[in-house]
Amino acid sequence: MIKCEEAVISEVASSERVAPEFISEGLKDGSIVILGNPLHKNVKPIGIGRGISTKVNANIGTSERCSSIEFELKKLEVAVGAKADTVMDLSTSGDLKEIRRAIISASPVPVGTVPIYEAAVLAGDIEKMSEDLIFDIIEDHAKDGVDFMTVHCGVNFESIGRLKSDPRVMDVVSRGGAFLIKWILANKEENPLYKKFDVLLDIAKKYGVALSLGDGMRPGCIADATDRAQIQELIILGQLTERARKAGVQVIIEGPGHVPFNEIEANIKLAKSICKGAPFYVLGPLPTDVAVGHDHITGAIGGTLAAAAGADFLCYVTPSEHLGLPDLEDVREGVIATRIAAHAGDIVKGVKGAAQWDLEMSRARKSLNWERQIELALDPEKAKKMHEKNKSENVCTMCGKYCSMKIMNESFKPALE
Amino acid sequence: MIKCEEAVISEVASSERVAPEFISEGLKDGSIVILGNPLHKNVKPIGIGRGISTKVNANIGTSERCSSIEFELKKLEVAVGAKADTVMDLSTSGDLKEIRRAIISASPVPVGTVPIYEAAVLAGDIEKMSEDLIFDIIEDHAKDGVDFMTVHCGVNFESIGRLKSDPRVMDVVSRGGAFLIKWILANKEENPLYKKFDVLLDIAKKYGVALSLGDGMRPGCIADATDRAQIQELIILGQLTERARKAGVQVIIEGPGHVPFNEIEANIKLAKSICKGAPFYVLGPLPTDVAVGHDHITGAIGGTLAAAAGADFLCYVTPSEHLGLPDLEDVREGVIATRIAAHAGDIVKGVKGAAQWDLEMSRARKSLNWERQIELALDPEKAKKMHEKNKSENVCTMCGKYCSMKIMNESFKPALE
Repeated sequence: MIKCEEAVISEVASSERVAPEFISEGLKDGSIVILGNPLHKNVKPIGIGRGISTKVNANIGTSERCSSIEFELKKLEVAVGAKADTVMDLSTSGDLKEIRRAIISASPVPVGTVPIYEAAVLAGDIEKMSEDLIFDIIEDHAKDGVDFMTVHCGVNFESIGRLKSDPRVMDVVSRGGAFLIKWILANKEENPLYKKFDVLLDIAKKYGVALSLGDGMRPGCIADATDRAQIQELIILGQLTERARKAGVQVIIEGPGHVPFNEIEANIKLAKSICKGAPFYVLGPLPTDVAVGHDHITGAIGGTLAAAAGADFLCYVTPSEHLGLPDLEDVREGVIATRIAAHAGDIVKGVKGAAQWDLEMSRARKSLNWERQIELALDPEKAKKMHEKNKSENVCTMCGKYCSMKIMNESFKPALE
Repeated sequence: MIKCEEAVISEVASSERVAPEFISEGLKDGSIVILGNPLHKNVKPIGIGRGISTKVNANIGTSERCSSIEFELKKLEVAVGAKADTVMDLSTSGDLKEIRRAIISASPVPVGTVPIYEAAVLAGDIEKMSEDLIFDIIEDHAKDGVDFMTVHCGVNFESIGRLKSDPRVMDVVSRGGAFLIKWILANKEENPLYKKFDVLLDIAKKYGVALSLGDGMRPGCIADATDRAQIQELIILGQLTERARKAGVQVIIEGPGHVPFNEIEANIKLAKSICKGAPFYVLGPLPTDVAVGHDHITGAIGGTLAAAAGADFLCYVTPSEHLGLPDLEDVREGVIATRIAAHAGDIVKGVKGAAQWDLEMSRARKSLNWERQIELALDPEKAKKMHEKNKSENVCTMCGKYCSMKIMNESFKPALE
């Protein structure tokens, strides 16, 4: 069983409106994780998993063309303001340690990282990363207060073999996955994150960091979805999940990616089965490859079905996906779109309070109470702005005096009495 | 069987990449309709229904606070530019006949209307609409070249009875539905569109107009979805569908509305069964009530599942839904979001050419061919603009030199040889 302080469990249970025992049971069987590294001061720990609300992650971080700490802190502010539940710092340029520490220090929500990025950057050439460097950096991240880490442990000789025997249109689109494949092929050595998984477990346990087992083999297009390499990696992640649980380390499983709409549910059920109910963290999924510039919408489409089918944690996709780093507005749009997906999924899951929110909104709408509608909006800021532009006495400009609410309130209500 | 000229059938078959016989068979059994009133000059007829691509409609039209013909023509231009397959003119203010004629004359895509709106506007008070006025206006629309019309024939004593016995949070949110309920209650008379359905059929047949049987009882919130009033109306629409077919009139069925994600598939299958495979036209559906300001996303989420489950025709929802009339940018966003849903659904349906489009995009992405990616984008205009802002040599600003495509092309490809 994962050790977690009673106070933390109570806090998580209270914000999920469930009994503390429900959270404890979930921690015990691994279907719930709590993110909150004790070294991340001021973090509000959150629960992710079965029976509680679907969470939303926003990726931020620098790259070579854009590596300002200030800008990353602004993205963090926008993401948290739009109510992202977690952020991940995926920086690959600038002083990575300084950026990470600044983000963690400023973030009230759990922060995730992908330590292999820093290892590659510091090594200069990807293939020159030493095993010691990789694990040192992982421990550095844990010490800095990182709450969860993506580790691509399932990219190994076995899954790469499947990739070779079952060729893809897009090969590998996971950045960490590509780094490790390059390293493995160049060094003709097994992936250190797989080979020395116990070292990883020791660090995770020591610092109370959750491991997010990355899907280096996630499909990068509809045509590659649910193929042998992807499922081979998933099988490996399932085995590692059991080892982590035995070691008392919390585990999340990462999943696709680009998946046709009719294969999304099967992907979620499969991951939940192979990985014995571990919380499932998906990127999208994107049910089409062609909507570039609008992939926050594509992601929300796939994310809703994923959440409804049991995914616990949705990574946002922003409008700039496949084109470049997100700007502040992209971050905001990405978080909002993904929150719509999470909430629509929560209605299906029967998450406490989810359908009630919609009911309250509908009552406010029926009574033409605009103030309350804005208050209840998932994005009150945008709702307010658009309402101000469109208000017309007590109705809106769409129907004006032909408002169906107004007509029904005047003609049908009396007929009911 | 519906009579349709051979040349029109060939044209539709060719744009759908199916055999003309497939279209003829669909017309014969009512699973496909062709929209294209011979009096609508320059319209390109389109097919809607089983086995062919999912179509997208954009609603335009005036209301009391905004009734400029020029602005409506601009909305039409934006909708057609964003590749809407049809538009509906839902005007309720200004010179309705002039607006309608201007839109039809300018529109290369089929145009739909809701004649009861004009009847209510001309009568002054909704309850004062005479039966003659209603049918005269319907004939006027047909003569003007309207290609399809929404007629709320299923709002009658029977379905209103269910509405009274099974109270709702939102009652009726369909504007046409609310008009007819007000009329029926005030006049204590049956809905003329139901009572004199044969008169409607005569007009539709005479002019080659398709009837879109409106869902006045569509649920306006999650809590009201799939209730007795909604299904009672659907049963009535099913009966009317058979009468229309016997009369040689083409019929589309309209559907919800606000529906929780896990009830959408059942709604589609139910409508298809009750209405004997008639093309199904949905508004959204919206799987949550709280995302006001972003309901184009909510609609795309529900629309994808609807299309994947068999819906044939998606009515767009714009960001301004529930708040006001859409502006030009809202129209554009609404069409694009709905096209994403239609296409993601078409991949599932196995529509000719759908998955091939994604495959070509993925190959362009894999080879870092940006020009081709933009060309293949569902919205090339936005993709181009965002790419220009983000390009960084041959990769994008998200990963820069750590681009997974680049790394895999350099390290993995040689390993395959």
